[in-house]
Amino acid sequence: MKLENIRIVMIGTTHPGNVGAAARAMHNMCISRLTLVDPQCPIGDVAYARASGANVILDNRETHADLGAAIADCSRVIATTARRRSLPWPELDPREMAESLFALDDDRQVALVFGREHSGLSNDELQMCHQMVCIPTNPGFSSLNVASAIQVMCYEIFRYQAEPYELPAPEGPDLPASSAEVEGYIEHLRQTLDGCGFLNPQQPEMIMQRLRRIYMRNELTRSEIHILRGILSSFARQQG
Amino acid sequence: MKLENIRIVMIGTTHPGNVGAAARAMHNMCISRLTLVDPQCPIGDVAYARASGANVILDNRETHADLGAAIADCSRVIATTARRRSLPWPELDPREMAESLFALDDDRQVALVFGREHSGLSNDELQMCHQMVCIPTNPGFSSLNVASAIQVMCYEIFRYQAEPYELPAPEGPDLPASSAEVEGYIEHLRQTLDGCGFLNPQQPEMIMQRLRRIYMRNELTRSEIHILRGILSSFARQQG
Repeated sequence: MKLENIRIVMIGTTHPGNVGAAARAMHNMCISRLTLVDPQCPIGDVAYARASGANVILDNRETHADLGAAIADCSRVIATTARRRSLPWPELDPREMAESLFALDDDRQVALVFGREHSGLSNDELQMCHQMVCIPTNPGFSSLNVASAIQVMCYEIFRYQAEPYELPAPEGPDLPASSAEVEGYIEHLRQTLDGCGFLNPQQPEMIMQRLRRIYMRNELTRSEIHILRGILSSFARQQG
Repeated sequence: MKLENIRIVMIGTTHPGNVGAAARAMHNMCISRLTLVDPQCPIGDVAYARASGANVILDNRETHADLGAAIADCSRVIATTARRRSLPWPELDPREMAESLFALDDDRQVALVFGREHSGLSNDELQMCHQMVCIPTNPGFSSLNVASAIQVMCYEIFRYQAEPYELPAPEGPDLPASSAEVEGYIEHLRQTLDGCGFLNPQQPEMIMQRLRRIYMRNELTRSEIHILRGILSSFARQQG
């Protein structure tokens, strides 16, 4: 599956702001093809303002009179709804949907279909879909804004294709301190605390073990050790 | 972790529609506590219209003058940003964030912090956070609408608690320190270092930011704060 083969289909949208917000959400997640079916509002300034720079998505949008025309070349059509229907229907959550998409061949055309703001998808439209996705929600307040639903779906798709999603370790040039460097700091700390009477001579280890735990679990870097030892030296000069 | 202990903090919001959309997104995902910091717009008809029935979230919102006050009782503060900062910082994706939240004890107070529409979080605000979450995005168009970012984060949290897959390791009996307690220690440290001439009067913040990062990423407990402040007091007595 390639992201460019995935289209977002919005049916009967009544609020241009939602179309703009959907364009932004799509562009954030590298999904570029927006298809409007029977839109009930103009796509003008309000939509472009909410798109917040994702103009290319709105400029290249397609418009069709009905869902059948919008998905004619698609071999996987997925409806999104917060409601569970009484009909038995293959039902996925957004993560499973993303997984299932990327199991498809590269040349498949896929549509994610989103219904009207107030009435969702008609039964005829639902019948054209192969799968239904439910975004898990508060049972007492289950209706997501349509652009928010598009955001969640596109996020799951983008996140999945970015997998294996390994965040590069946010390492600066600063190297992790070695054990010996950490021990050197802890010994320096012990001597300093001993010198100023902070440690109980009978049980110096109790406090030292607590302090060791603070600094050990921290994975200090070399430059941090340098700062911390600098502080100790600065105290020593004061005392001297 | 209980959902009612998670608050959404929006800083310096300029568009009431975004506050309303955030309230709807939160209510969809059973997150109920909305905290505004220094809002730059009235919360009126526009916000309520976009909330689309999630009035209870807006009605019960809290407002604070600055981030410190908004998170004073929190022991886990998480910043959301699309940008990677050059500084090394513990960085999670939204799913890892959700996992890490539910590894916390039930009574922890948690804040998810979202920055201004145009300028995000200031460095000072970022310094108050323990973790940073990046929503994976199109590198060429990475800025999510703030309510969309809240939607994605709340979705991951709700989804996780709806289907916990792993039991977290239990934590020790020692309570995590609140933000106010950690700030108290850092201020105490600053005064002590200032008193002994360790800080460069021209650039005191450079070192303080490094030290802050050491202690913030550590999730200090209350008793550890007690020990660390005891050390500072002990130094002060020596100098006195």
